[in-house]
Amino acid sequence: MGYGAVTEKIILELAEIAGASHVWTTEEKREACSRDETTTLRPEERFMPDVVVAPSSAREVSEILQTANKYKIPVTPRGGGTGLSGGALALRGGIVISDERLNRIIEIDEENMAVVTEPGVITSEINAAAAEKGLAYTGYPMSVLSCHIGGNVAENAGGGNAVKYGVTMRYVLGLEVVLPTGEILTLGGKLMKDVSGYSLKELFVGSEGTLGYVTKIILRLQPLMRNRAALLALFADTAGAIAAVPRMMARGGLIPSSIEYIDAYCYVKACEFLNEELPTEGVGAVLLVEVDGSDQDALDNDIERAGELLKAGGASEIYVADTRFTRERIWAVRRNIDEALRVTDPVQTDEDIVVPISKIPDIARGLKEMERRFGVRAANFGHAGDGNLHPTFLKPTDMMMERWQSVETEIEWELFRMTAELGGVISGEHGIGSKRKKYFAELCPRENLELMKKIKKALDPNNIMNPGKIFDL
Amino acid sequence: MGYGAVTEKIILELAEIAGASHVWTTEEKREACSRDETTTLRPEERFMPDVVVAPSSAREVSEILQTANKYKIPVTPRGGGTGLSGGALALRGGIVISDERLNRIIEIDEENMAVVTEPGVITSEINAAAAEKGLAYTGYPMSVLSCHIGGNVAENAGGGNAVKYGVTMRYVLGLEVVLPTGEILTLGGKLMKDVSGYSLKELFVGSEGTLGYVTKIILRLQPLMRNRAALLALFADTAGAIAAVPRMMARGGLIPSSIEYIDAYCYVKACEFLNEELPTEGVGAVLLVEVDGSDQDALDNDIERAGELLKAGGASEIYVADTRFTRERIWAVRRNIDEALRVTDPVQTDEDIVVPISKIPDIARGLKEMERRFGVRAANFGHAGDGNLHPTFLKPTDMMMERWQSVETEIEWELFRMTAELGGVISGEHGIGSKRKKYFAELCPRENLELMKKIKKALDPNNIMNPGKIFDL
Repeated sequence: MGYGAVTEKIILELAEIAGASHVWTTEEKREACSRDETTTLRPEERFMPDVVVAPSSAREVSEILQTANKYKIPVTPRGGGTGLSGGALALRGGIVISDERLNRIIEIDEENMAVVTEPGVITSEINAAAAEKGLAYTGYPMSVLSCHIGGNVAENAGGGNAVKYGVTMRYVLGLEVVLPTGEILTLGGKLMKDVSGYSLKELFVGSEGTLGYVTKIILRLQPLMRNRAALLALFADTAGAIAAVPRMMARGGLIPSSIEYIDAYCYVKACEFLNEELPTEGVGAVLLVEVDGSDQDALDNDIERAGELLKAGGASEIYVADTRFTRERIWAVRRNIDEALRVTDPVQTDEDIVVPISKIPDIARGLKEMERRFGVRAANFGHAGDGNLHPTFLKPTDMMMERWQSVETEIEWELFRMTAELGGVISGEHGIGSKRKKYFAELCPRENLELMKKIKKALDPNNIMNPGKIFDL
Repeated sequence: MGYGAVTEKIILELAEIAGASHVWTTEEKREACSRDETTTLRPEERFMPDVVVAPSSAREVSEILQTANKYKIPVTPRGGGTGLSGGALALRGGIVISDERLNRIIEIDEENMAVVTEPGVITSEINAAAAEKGLAYTGYPMSVLSCHIGGNVAENAGGGNAVKYGVTMRYVLGLEVVLPTGEILTLGGKLMKDVSGYSLKELFVGSEGTLGYVTKIILRLQPLMRNRAALLALFADTAGAIAAVPRMMARGGLIPSSIEYIDAYCYVKACEFLNEELPTEGVGAVLLVEVDGSDQDALDNDIERAGELLKAGGASEIYVADTRFTRERIWAVRRNIDEALRVTDPVQTDEDIVVPISKIPDIARGLKEMERRFGVRAANFGHAGDGNLHPTFLKPTDMMMERWQSVETEIEWELFRMTAELGGVISGEHGIGSKRKKYFAELCPRENLELMKKIKKALDPNNIMNPGKIFDL
């Protein structure tokens, strides 16, 4: 598909729509929009848009998209730029629509337990505003302090609380979306149920900005759980740790707010990085379990039961963290894995597979096998409660970069094929984006891919919205 | 669009696919598939299919749909026939695909907390099978004892527990769907997260059988909550009762498993019908609140707090039901409203609107106004916790049937316009079907409707799947 060039005339049209001071063609601004946090991007890689525009209303977005559609200019929506799959990269140049001026929390509606927000708000700000009214947005991802809520919707973000609270989609009650052809859709509302026609709202959630630009979001809020307690359970191996998960949930009747899995390598690395003196000898796998609630007695009860169930499930040691300080300490281990790994192994690729929970030990075994075969380290951690793992492959320092780049692709193929064979998928919360597109093209069933393409073509006949993401047309 | 006739040749083809003994053209079988439970169907109304076929596999469904698509024969999927919006009516004759042979629970997977089932299983049977392993399917609707799970998926069914547990969509982890053109799609799996491509699974949930035929369903299960307690709170009026709901949830931090609203008329009628001696004097509205949990102490605590919050919110009297017997007694009041109303007012139309919770009192006021204007009774009850109401308009015994039929349409227009003005939609859990199609065509924003039609045409080019439901092409 041939795209048009961003001419002086088009830039003038954009300036007329959004105001000249909200349209940038400077190197500096374009450069700032040329990357995201995808680990496989080489340091020198840049995807420079021709122009960046920051509209302030759905109407302006609609006019920008109509202009882009008329001249066949690719459009890349950009939020916080914290994505891990290249979703915000302007692969084919063109226009980046920045959400920096669509950054208001419009309303916290206490009575209907909902927030109405624009897409450019940092997710943690929504939680701060909700907390003032005793409410919380529980669908947030791990990057809550820097990601934008619009990006969360585009990627259907998950996170560490999904085992109890689910992912972004569960909380999206309403959306205002501008289609690539300029129509402004209002979907849903402050409504907890809605079966009036097809699930259009859900179609946009997780579509990675390829079907439209979201200009307003209504999210369901929950009562703020004021109390939480966590524990760290040490196991001899992954199989034992994972077997303890259904024991706790299905048989124990307990749904913790987090069940995080950390393999021995990540655990040791993070402890070293933090100068944390937790025992590491004989530890083959670790679970970090957190429970939350509004009633302190019930919570004490829950954490005690969780401990008993994990002990009965084979945990060798359990550290309960029931103060804010001790909780921060054990969460620091989980949160600093990425950074700890980077100290000694700066070149890596982080993955985002999902498998049925019972298959996590198969993945762990498969990773060990891959380590031997490819001569690389496969660090593994993730959300055990929902089967979403982030295996991270580390380039050995003595491996040449050229060799690594070909090994990396082989490794990813191997991991994704194994995941598919175990009934899993190649992304649970980071998205396909441009990073995983070639794998998705092979592993997604042909009929499913055809259906996605039909929908894409029906909504975006000129393929201007975030082209080259998820699949190529 | 011209449809083909069901010829002898086509019936032979169907017999070859599904076996001659699973293809029926008898008056009796066709008649059994000619109605559902939509209240506005006249007693004599029938929508007779030409032929009923009961396939036993996705492969057979695919061949049936390929045959239907080749000869342009309309196809109507049929489950338990308990729908309330005419979704299972063969409006244009043709083929009914019955799910009576797709009726196996394939697997209860305890480790992954999931059930794999065919669509023709009665929803309560899934719960019975799950309960044996300490698990529960919590997305079920009020008709759980007679509806089929396939119908629940088609309608994205809600129910009395949605305030805490959400509706069907939240629990659908995977689907096998046959497209109208015969392709068999496998979507999702035993996976708690999945952002690998568009949300296709969600597109089929709630599409009322117009986009494909579901042949397999994977549902998420939850730990079975073994304890529950309920209370009945009496209020002087609806505004007071509804104001108590956010007080309990947002400020009290308590999410009950049910918050049911019953207006004074329904309450008195149901008490009379049951010979139940609850006080009715001065009662303007009633809330039935149920909490569930696995820990009895926490539950006792919750029901006590719920009582306190409702009392502080203006409840004049509160009856706590903490034994199975007393719980059954107060739930009987809620469950018997329909039947109680039918004793004295057999001709009625039941609705299914959703509004933001805070707007329930506006609906109550609007209904009073409508009673005066149209000279009919507007009984009102529903799920206060999620804003989903079932206003039921009753034909006065002395009103002529012809007059009622025109009044009924006027009433529905009035109710739906009022709902839309309050930010609501015309169906929360029953669906649009054929019953609400004419209203939906007017009240659904044009752009949304166009998008739905584009999707429908992309998936079903000959419009054979359940034609005439939700919208006309």
